[in-house]
Amino acid sequence: MKLPPSTALLVIDVQEGFNDPRWGERNNPHAEENITRLLAAWRAQNMPVMHAQHDSPGADGAFRPGTPGNRPKPGFMPLVGESVHRKTVNSMFIGTGLEEELRSRGVQTVVIVGLTTNHCVSTTARMAGNLGFKTHVVSDACAAFARPTLDGLMRSADEVHAAALSDLQDEFATVLDTAAALAALPARATA
Amino acid sequence: MKLPPSTALLVIDVQEGFNDPRWGERNNPHAEENITRLLAAWRAQNMPVMHAQHDSPGADGAFRPGTPGNRPKPGFMPLVGESVHRKTVNSMFIGTGLEEELRSRGVQTVVIVGLTTNHCVSTTARMAGNLGFKTHVVSDACAAFARPTLDGLMRSADEVHAAALSDLQDEFATVLDTAAALAALPARATA
Repeated sequence: MKLPPSTALLVIDVQEGFNDPRWGERNNPHAEENITRLLAAWRAQNMPVMHAQHDSPGADGAFRPGTPGNRPKPGFMPLVGESVHRKTVNSMFIGTGLEEELRSRGVQTVVIVGLTTNHCVSTTARMAGNLGFKTHVVSDACAAFARPTLDGLMRSADEVHAAALSDLQDEFATVLDTAAALAALPARATA
Repeated sequence: MKLPPSTALLVIDVQEGFNDPRWGERNNPHAEENITRLLAAWRAQNMPVMHAQHDSPGADGAFRPGTPGNRPKPGFMPLVGESVHRKTVNSMFIGTGLEEELRSRGVQTVVIVGLTTNHCVSTTARMAGNLGFKTHVVSDACAAFARPTLDGLMRSADEVHAAALSDLQDEFATVLDTAAALAALPARATA
């Protein structure tokens, strides 16, 4: 598999607010390191990078504008020329100009990474696939938090993450890992 | 909790194609019976009912137009005055006039039922919540099919269903059961 040079990397909500202990147990501590490798490779090949940043609308949200939780994590500040889509809901397509940007730049393929697998990543990937974009999600460049079932049983972060990817695979997106995504770049990345 | 009289019941993809053995093990055999009870109650109170019907775009889809799989299951034929949103993807909002219909009719609250919990129901509920509609999903009026993880382990239909509802709860939607939905209708249903 090769990704075309117009493939956009969508980097979702890699913000300080996800360090808040309110979220509980998280899986995949290497997600940020893998996103960093993907970002470096995209930038090295001048391929499009688009960032989503979450602005909590509520008074107790972890991502309220003007609070430390709203800031990108260290190393994830967008560069000049990279677009930032601010959003107040999960989907990077709702209330933003993302679909218009992708279409006007001729992007037909997207690679999605970030936080969290089952909420903002899954919702954005579902919409990207349903809107007709060829959609990829990088399994080890996403992470999830533990979450209860309706019966009050705890699902571990690994379970939540694996279930979200299982639901996406072959229905909305192709799920691959960082090594496979790097190997699929037009000029093979050496990062 | 009371639902306003303008609450729309969104009935998703209750079609013969889901009887195809290709889908594998299914949970919740009583989903159709519960949807029938909800439909009867909505109709008795002249509340809005909107149906999604899936048209498979591919040559081997289970819901190809003109094949038996495309037909509504017995008892799920839309009545005159109920809208039908035909779609070729999971979300009932993509490629249809659903959002416009809801807004033009002053609907701010939706109750979602149908097939399948983790795909078309979840995707439609995620978008409904993110678009600002007060969204409810009826747990025992949806069903799912077994599905493998990326590691090839089988997730049972019950697991897939429970995981999908856990991801929706308190983030995109309120999950409730048929009895609670009927009890929340403006005039309490006796069905």
